[in-house]
This record gives sequence, C-alpha cells and structure tokens, in this order.
Amino acid sequence: MGGGAAADLSQAEAFARIRLLRSPNIGPVSYRQLLARFGTAIAALDALPDLAGRGGKPYRIAAEGRVHDEIVALRKAGARYLFHDSPDYPALLLSAEGAPPILTMRGDPALAARPCVAMVGARNASAAAVRLARDFAHALAAEGYTVVSGLARGIDGAAHEGALAGGGGTIGVIASGIDIAYPPEHTGLQERVAQEGLLLAEQPPGTDPLARHFPARNRIIAGLAAGTLVVEAAPRSGSLITARLAGEMGREVMAVPGSPLDPRSHGCNQLIRDGAVLVQSPADVIELLCGFDGMPRSTFREDAPQWDAADIEAAEPADLAARLTTAPISVDELIRQSGSGAAAVQLALLELELAGRLIRHAGGRVSLSG
Amino acid sequence: MGGGAAADLSQAEAFARIRLLRSPNIGPVSYRQLLARFGTAIAALDALPDLAGRGGKPYRIAAEGRVHDEIVALRKAGARYLFHDSPDYPALLLSAEGAPPILTMRGDPALAARPCVAMVGARNASAAAVRLARDFAHALAAEGYTVVSGLARGIDGAAHEGALAGGGGTIGVIASGIDIAYPPEHTGLQERVAQEGLLLAEQPPGTDPLARHFPARNRIIAGLAAGTLVVEAAPRSGSLITARLAGEMGREVMAVPGSPLDPRSHGCNQLIRDGAVLVQSPADVIELLCGFDGMPRSTFREDAPQWDAADIEAAEPADLAARLTTAPISVDELIRQSGSGAAAVQLALLELELAGRLIRHAGGRVSLSG
Repeated sequence: MGGGAAADLSQAEAFARIRLLRSPNIGPVSYRQLLARFGTAIAALDALPDLAGRGGKPYRIAAEGRVHDEIVALRKAGARYLFHDSPDYPALLLSAEGAPPILTMRGDPALAARPCVAMVGARNASAAAVRLARDFAHALAAEGYTVVSGLARGIDGAAHEGALAGGGGTIGVIASGIDIAYPPEHTGLQERVAQEGLLLAEQPPGTDPLARHFPARNRIIAGLAAGTLVVEAAPRSGSLITARLAGEMGREVMAVPGSPLDPRSHGCNQLIRDGAVLVQSPADVIELLCGFDGMPRSTFREDAPQWDAADIEAAEPADLAARLTTAPISVDELIRQSGSGAAAVQLALLELELAGRLIRHAGGRVSLSG
Repeated sequence: MGGGAAADLSQAEAFARIRLLRSPNIGPVSYRQLLARFGTAIAALDALPDLAGRGGKPYRIAAEGRVHDEIVALRKAGARYLFHDSPDYPALLLSAEGAPPILTMRGDPALAARPCVAMVGARNASAAAVRLARDFAHALAAEGYTVVSGLARGIDGAAHEGALAGGGGTIGVIASGIDIAYPPEHTGLQERVAQEGLLLAEQPPGTDPLARHFPARNRIIAGLAAGTLVVEAAPRSGSLITARLAGEMGREVMAVPGSPLDPRSHGCNQLIRDGAVLVQSPADVIELLCGFDGMPRSTFREDAPQWDAADIEAAEPADLAARLTTAPISVDELIRQSGSGAAAVQLALLELELAGRLIRHAGGRVSLSG
C-alpha cells in the first residue's frame, strides 16, 4: 500500500480497510465499530451488505476498481497510507474524537511526534498579521515545535513559510486529495511542505477541496496539536471552528489580540473573552504548551461496542428512528431512554447510518439526516 | 468652608480638620485614627504635640495662617471642601482603603453617585486609541455612566471630551491643587469638566502636579469607579498602577487589546493575560458593570483603634522600630509578633509616623522610611 502501512497489515486487509472506509455512509465511528465487531475489514466487508440491507434499501460497497485506481493515484503522487494502528499515526490525533481511520501522507511522519502547535487564521489577513504569523512560526520551529496549518492563503501560508525558514518542521493538512494543490499559488509551498515537512490529507486522491471538507480538515489540524493559536480571524470564521474543536478536545486555545477598530481582530478578541489565552509572543506559546498535559491516549476503540446475535435481534432501527429528530441528541441519552442494551442501540444507529439516515455530530451526538 | 462642608460640621471643626491633615506626617490612616481616638479634630490637634513629641523630635502643627491662606485660595478658585462624612463624599471612594479624608471639588458631586467607570491610558497614545477612548466615553456617558479620568494628555483627555460630547457626566481627578491646570493645553478642558462635570483634587490649592502625587491621584480614580478600563498602555505605566489599585479594591479591571506588534498595546495585553476582562465595545463594559456588586460600605472607621491611657503607657515605639525594616510588613503580623495589644501597637506606629519614621503601604502594611 504505497510502502508504509502498518507493519503487520496484509495487503489484502489494507485494501479492505480502504474499501470499507470509501463505502457509502461509513464514517470514523461506523468504521471503528465494524472493525471492533468483526476483527478485520475483510470480515466487515463480508458482513456489510446484510447489515446495511436491514435498512430496507440496497447497499453497494465501494467498487474494487475504484480502490485500485485510488492506490495507483496515491503511488503516483509519491504518497502512502497511514492507518490508525500504524506506529507512524500521530498519537495525539488518534486520541481525538472522530480521528480519521486512514490518512494519506507525504513526508516525514516523525514530525507529528514532536510537540505540535497549530496556527490558523484569516485568508484575507492584514499584512501585519501575516508578518506576525511568519515570525511566530519561525521562532516556534526554531525551538523544536512542529507548526501545523492548512496551507490556505493568508495566515496558513505564512505559518508554513515561517516554520520552513526557521529550519523546523511543519505539517500541512489539506482538504483535497493529496495530489491536488489549492490554492493554485500555493502549489510550490505545498510541494516544499511535502518534501521538507509532512503533508496529510484525509480525502482520497483526486478529491477536489469542497467546502464541506474544510471542517473535517480543521478537526485534524486541531487534533494534531497540543494547542491551536488563532492569529487573526473574523467572527464566524473557519479558524474559530478549529479553535472550538481544539477546546473540545481539551487542547490549549490561544489567540493573538488586535485593536477593536479592526474587524479582522474581532474573532480573536471574542475568543479571548470566551477563555482563550491571549498570547503576545512565541515565548507565551511555549510557556503555555510546556504545561500541556496531553499524554496521548487512544480513544479509538474504547467506546466500540461488542454486539452479538441477540443484539442484532434486539436492534430496532425503525423504533429508534421514530425517537430521533434532526436535532442532535447524545447516544448515552438515547440508550437511557430506549430501555434496550447499549449494544443494541449502537447497532441500530449503525444500521441507520449505513442506510444514510443518520448523522453523527461531535460529542457523541446523533440526529436524523434531513 | 467654601459653602458646602458636612452640614453638622462647625467652622472651627472644619478648620481644625484641614489643619490636622496638613500637619507633618499625617496621612489618611493617622488622620482617621486620631479622629477616632479624640472625637474631633480640635481635640486631636490639642493632643498632637504631646503625642508626636514622644518621638523625641519637636513637632510643629500646620500654621493657622497657612490654612487660612488655603481656604482663601480655594474660595477664589470657586471650589469647596468635601469631608469624608459629608453626604456628598463619593460613597464608593469612601469604601476604598486610604480614601482621602478631605477632597477639594468644583462642580456637581452627584455625578459620583451614578455608576462610574474609570478610563485611563497612555499620554502618547496612538490616534486610533484616542479615537476609541472618545467613542467609548461618548457611548458610556450617553448610557448614564459617569466617566472618571485624570485630565492628562492622550487617553484621559479623550475620555473627558467624549463624555462631555455624549451629554453625560465626567469626573476629572487632578494631581495638583484644584486651582492649577496641567497640562497647560488642557486648561480649557479642565474648566469645562469643572463647569459641566465634577473636578476633584486631594492636594491643597497652589500645589504643583509633582510626580509623587500621581499614584495618590490614581487611587482616587480607581476608588471612584465600579471598574477601570485601560485603553492603551505601555508596560510599567501609571495606567497599569491604576488598574492594579482597582483590582486590589475589588473593582472590575478591563482592557482594550491591541496588536502585539505595537508596543503601546503590551500593557493592556499583559493586563488581560493577568486576568483583566478584554473589552471590545462600550456594550462589553456595560454588560460587565451591570453585574458589579460593589455596594459601597465605608471602611473609614472600622479598623480605627480605641486606645486609652494604659495603651499609651504600653506603646513602645523604639521596640517596634527595632522590629521594622524598610521592607513592608502587615500591621496584623506586627501585632501577632509583638505580644502587645493591638491598640498599643497601632499607637506606637502612629507615633513613629508622626515622627516621620514610618511609611504606610497598601494592604495595611508598614515599613520604616529610608
């Protein structure tokens, strides 16, 4: 699989894992539950049509040819897969809720094992903020930190450039496939990150950077880092989503303040009002992250249920669907209300998800789709 | 005494109070203790030579002629005295440690009874910060807040101007005598504050604005207000002292952030790191101060000891002086260590103070002078 999958993973199992994740309505949670239930992706794929078929509609596993093509494209891009149980998979990211079961990567995965700090901010940032981002990244990289960002215009690009100039590590996480550069003017920078740093993508090769992929990309940025620093951000911007995700993961959230007279500062200032740490210098960042007690602890399997034949009998997706609405509710609450066992409820939810009727939200919450 | 002293205060007692406070080595604490012990300033003045003489050196009460001259100068300036027990004395200020026993004033003392917010900042503030200060003060005054500041260049002046333009109240607290305008270019503004707002001075008329008077002036600004807002301030500036004093008084401390690239923002940013509330708008200030539970409660007499003849016998200023250094120590700690009664220790401290050998610090601490 491109030369570096988990050492003990057979080619067939690696292929099956990719095929499983690319199949309809499979997300990190259902992938994890299926792997936990069936032991291997090969076995999960065998069981999937029956399980998904209980939803009523026919279910089509991802075509083998599509997976073959993906692997060819990945090799062509000089990239390889990173499975959740690979020693190279970033440990801090693995401990985050909804961590991608499979990443694609180019470059040096060891950079993710250093202390990582995410730097994010506005694409249309002020010249002063761009300079500040570059200076911060330069100083942090020179101190041995890996600077994580999203290769977007503005703050992201400045962060990568500063870290590279600082002679240190940087990780670029992109919303497209790993073989696509966006924005076009960052093609050279993305190549440098892949050559000198680490480039990560969750979407398969060939995927365009669609708007709906950006929040998922942001959770990876937040999940890789001990803390996220927002340099300049307007209210309701993607950078603030990354900061919120970092906070929900128990990571440090930091922001660079600015004058209230500049609307581009309002997001950071509000973040500080909401509890983010105001930072004025790279030293402030280092001081804070030195105290980060983020011993990575994998949550990848901990809430994966082990269901058996009796659970499959007891699972009543239709009953459960009747209890759900489009407003998210926690799975724990559903289990309490249902009177069924946890495993039966989890299985019913999985069936609804495979049928495309369920959406999973952060914090272990679910809702009906549309 | 200029037309508005406490209603039940005789001319003779008011005169004696002024004379007492202007006598050597009398500060707010010793003034309070003497008034508490002797009932009236007239009686305190009678006792003062004996009490002070126990220090060894001769002690000269302020000359009557000097007090007469002060009163004439005050009348000429159109000002009057405000004694601590006057109903016009600002209640919140009275609850602050070391509140001035006597203020001089021009204008409308009722402005201090409205919710007050102090606005302070750099004299060499940026044009943007000056504009922001004016806009904030305008909006706060229009909402019925009284804006308190120090009539200095930069932020102070902008705060007063904004409040006046907002049609609301403003209080100027100056470090000089009330008949002296400083800086010269604020002569017109100071007159407007006296005519349309309230002008306060602790120093007697004719006093030049000496550097050592500014911290004392700052404590009055902080003491008058439910909260202090620092608009732009360099590290180690007077504005930060005002903010610290406000915090020590249990008042709200607020700061307007700025870019780390501008050194003039560093004081405010550091203040926010240290726990001050970041504010971006007048609405943020109002939201915070609405929750201010600063019911004024006079502490003016509460720790004034009542000593008697036995205490005067027991007081051993020399022994106490031997236990003191130039490093401040709390009076409570001294009392614990001394084995004497609290009243005897307080009296011994008073005698050292009258002899010019004691300095009183914030938080009820004392040290030897030089």
